[in-house]
Amino acid sequence: MRSVLLAVFTAIFAYNTPAQRIPTPPERPHKLNPDQVAQEVRDYRMNNEDRIIRELSEFLAIPNIASDTENIQKNATQLVSMLEARGIETHLLSISGRGPVVFGKLAVPNARRTLIFYAHYDGQPVDPAAWTDGKPFEPALRTDSLENGGKRIPLPANSAQHPAIYNDDWRIYARSSSDDKSPIVALLAALDALRANKIPLGINLKLVLEGEEEDGSPNLERVLLAHKNLLDADVLITGDGPVHQSGRPLVFFGDRGILGFQITTYGAIRALHSGHYGNWAPNPGFTLARLLTSMKSEDGKVLIEGFYDDIVPLNTTEKDALAAMPNNDADLERDLQFARPEGGGQRLMELLQYPSLNIRGLRSAYVGEQAQNVVPEKATAAIDVRLVKGEDPDKKFEQVLAHIRKQGLFITTVDPTKEERLAHPAIARVAKDPWNYPASRTSMELPVSEALIKVVQDATGGQSVIAPLLGGSVPMYIFEKLQIPWIGVPIVNYDNHQHSSDENLRLGHLWRGMEIYAAILADLNW
Amino acid sequence: MRSVLLAVFTAIFAYNTPAQRIPTPPERPHKLNPDQVAQEVRDYRMNNEDRIIRELSEFLAIPNIASDTENIQKNATQLVSMLEARGIETHLLSISGRGPVVFGKLAVPNARRTLIFYAHYDGQPVDPAAWTDGKPFEPALRTDSLENGGKRIPLPANSAQHPAIYNDDWRIYARSSSDDKSPIVALLAALDALRANKIPLGINLKLVLEGEEEDGSPNLERVLLAHKNLLDADVLITGDGPVHQSGRPLVFFGDRGILGFQITTYGAIRALHSGHYGNWAPNPGFTLARLLTSMKSEDGKVLIEGFYDDIVPLNTTEKDALAAMPNNDADLERDLQFARPEGGGQRLMELLQYPSLNIRGLRSAYVGEQAQNVVPEKATAAIDVRLVKGEDPDKKFEQVLAHIRKQGLFITTVDPTKEERLAHPAIARVAKDPWNYPASRTSMELPVSEALIKVVQDATGGQSVIAPLLGGSVPMYIFEKLQIPWIGVPIVNYDNHQHSSDENLRLGHLWRGMEIYAAILADLNW
Repeated sequence: MRSVLLAVFTAIFAYNTPAQRIPTPPERPHKLNPDQVAQEVRDYRMNNEDRIIRELSEFLAIPNIASDTENIQKNATQLVSMLEARGIETHLLSISGRGPVVFGKLAVPNARRTLIFYAHYDGQPVDPAAWTDGKPFEPALRTDSLENGGKRIPLPANSAQHPAIYNDDWRIYARSSSDDKSPIVALLAALDALRANKIPLGINLKLVLEGEEEDGSPNLERVLLAHKNLLDADVLITGDGPVHQSGRPLVFFGDRGILGFQITTYGAIRALHSGHYGNWAPNPGFTLARLLTSMKSEDGKVLIEGFYDDIVPLNTTEKDALAAMPNNDADLERDLQFARPEGGGQRLMELLQYPSLNIRGLRSAYVGEQAQNVVPEKATAAIDVRLVKGEDPDKKFEQVLAHIRKQGLFITTVDPTKEERLAHPAIARVAKDPWNYPASRTSMELPVSEALIKVVQDATGGQSVIAPLLGGSVPMYIFEKLQIPWIGVPIVNYDNHQHSSDENLRLGHLWRGMEIYAAILADLNW
Repeated sequence: MRSVLLAVFTAIFAYNTPAQRIPTPPERPHKLNPDQVAQEVRDYRMNNEDRIIRELSEFLAIPNIASDTENIQKNATQLVSMLEARGIETHLLSISGRGPVVFGKLAVPNARRTLIFYAHYDGQPVDPAAWTDGKPFEPALRTDSLENGGKRIPLPANSAQHPAIYNDDWRIYARSSSDDKSPIVALLAALDALRANKIPLGINLKLVLEGEEEDGSPNLERVLLAHKNLLDADVLITGDGPVHQSGRPLVFFGDRGILGFQITTYGAIRALHSGHYGNWAPNPGFTLARLLTSMKSEDGKVLIEGFYDDIVPLNTTEKDALAAMPNNDADLERDLQFARPEGGGQRLMELLQYPSLNIRGLRSAYVGEQAQNVVPEKATAAIDVRLVKGEDPDKKFEQVLAHIRKQGLFITTVDPTKEERLAHPAIARVAKDPWNYPASRTSMELPVSEALIKVVQDATGGQSVIAPLLGGSVPMYIFEKLQIPWIGVPIVNYDNHQHSSDENLRLGHLWRGMEIYAAILADLNW
């Protein structure tokens, strides 16, 4: 029913309205400041919320797991029509069996500088059963967050006479509603707003929209290097990531790299009756528990030898920026409902300077109703390590392997053979995720860095938080290699359940994101 | 296709053949010894294998999870017709919403003693995806165990002229093929064989067939006490459990009790992006790993205070029996493919005298392809403790709770409240399984114990292993309360994947089980 309605509404109020198909109107003679741009975009948006939300909803309704070849292609096709509706020249940089890199280009007469906007249109894997509505790809509008008791509501009625009004606190629940489809929609809506208000762009725009970021961007570097000629640019803005936990807008200059792996420990070749063999058959769960315990102290310090050796420390500018960031850790702990963070008392933002070691998941046989009275045959931990500037993923992985060996475990990369099982009392299969990459960091002292901070602060009344680095991983190291300085300008709410079930976007954040992106497109210059 | 064929064959060669419906033929004048009974049963069986296997297959095809109300009732209905076809007077001792206790009674003229045969017709929970054939309730015949490369084959053709021959090494794969449906079928086939050979029963027979043993027998005690008048008997034989790992038949006189519980540890109220929060948000997987590590040493000693305090040690007869048991631990380790058991060098059989602490399963977020880059919100371990004679499940549970508290965790029985989360850095929700029960042990020095050992040894050429106790749990404490001595006479192969996926029965074990049960029914006396 909802999807039928959606289709009908989309047909009637399609985002590529005739107004946008006619030639761009003559531009206004006087350049507007970022705060003026933001105000005009806001006015435009208040009359167009329904169209923007429906464009986003339609986009979210296309499943977007990177490995789901058929659907990820549909996302790319949808993106092409969304871009072309804005007159953006579009190319698909194809990847066999995967979603292409969607490349877009909008030349601006007399613009000296070129900006690349990066985002990804794929999303994290989903377990529909873990979602409140059970359907990660049926966008659901709610009156607030689920935590705040948000109720599901239909999209409000909309007509030319009575445009639908969306409350800023309403949220859209769907996979990628925040990570990363909404920044794309915000940028396109910002373009629409600028055009409708006859505000000229001050910079050439290119788009690099990736379809396998959540799978580790395995092909991005290769594809971009092959199309290096398209990528001539002065700065890259990434829309990935959430804003600061205080709710204030965020500009960030660094991210962490990532190394993922899975450790599996083994018991007998098959699960055994826990009565007949318990006390005697080795339990892989205990082996795994001991190994994990050996890796990290109770206050969060990683105990793997050399783990903190290669960190490139922050410089004075970066340290000063870090110190100036708001400290809302106490609020955050209350909101997230836990009593004591890891890190021995250091602030969250300070801790992000260091590499992390995290258990992403654990699995051995069954728990709950499905629990069987067995000594399981294996136990697995999925781990991720976030790397900071200076650290090499391969070297870090070797440190992990050395630690596991030091605990007395024999390491294999595939399931152990019978001979290996009989020769070694404890075995760990360690399988590295196929795609891992280093951290990267852009200097905050570059003219473009300073100019961007100024535009965003001007557009947001000086409310933005400036961070030397963020904890997450985006494959920005590739652009660093291409010598394009990159800066993060995320827009979505921090409590967006990113990577988890019930991912969501707060609409007020989308609206503000439009204003920030519009101000950058109109006024960024250095 | 298979099920259609099965139905056709079952209709043609139904186990309740007319031959069994006519009055019992006059009995033979001379009493046969157990070895003679075994031989005659063997001869009978070789002409009736197809009928027996089809009766078993039809029974296995009915799903039998205790909580699956509709299907568990179907199992009981099937059992009634199987028993009544043998002229056994049958009563259903009903349990609301669950499978009834199927009670059967076969009075034997001039018999002084009465034997209760106990087995259960429900099975452990199943995860079809973990089964090689994906269908735990579609019995599959294989030429050998899966480990030995057994190939799936159809049931062989059968006719009166050319009876189907089943190889002893063939196996039937299905839930409960070993635990516990086949002992029931073996007993009934033994009755058929005795009757066909005009061998009289020497003892009155009663059957107590339970439908929720794998769920902890929550109603058995209550139901049996309510029908105490039906249960007058001199001995109880349980068919539950596997034979000795050497492959030799087994008689056992004790079992372990069971205490099950689940421990859940908590991080933030929701899963968090592991990049933005990793290093700071507490990881419930590490909390759980540390707690589990604190519970058991690397060589298998449980470190919970008082854990070994209440054990009632074995007496001299029991110790002698234990010492006389074959030691095939080394073979078993090779077969099960691991290099070092827990227990610091003690034999498996010796270790079963002690209580055990086992991780049945682990679960936190996701691993493998489904792994998400999150700091999970919780982690769960399913644990079982096997209790030995003298130990009280409630006291043991209190010891576990005290240990968890000593590790600094705050304990709840339901999900913690926001206030609890904010007040306690580490929280464990500990949920006890609803049904737990103590161990029990029958004296090996009773006349009935000695008589039973003799019959079984005579029927098996002195090859049987006599064990003072077994590691598994059967709710025999109830019969101990009813002052009925109980003895275990299991028949199925030890490598039956009991409680796990790919549960199976080796046919040769079923055949030998028939012989043993027939010898007991014909010759047990004291």
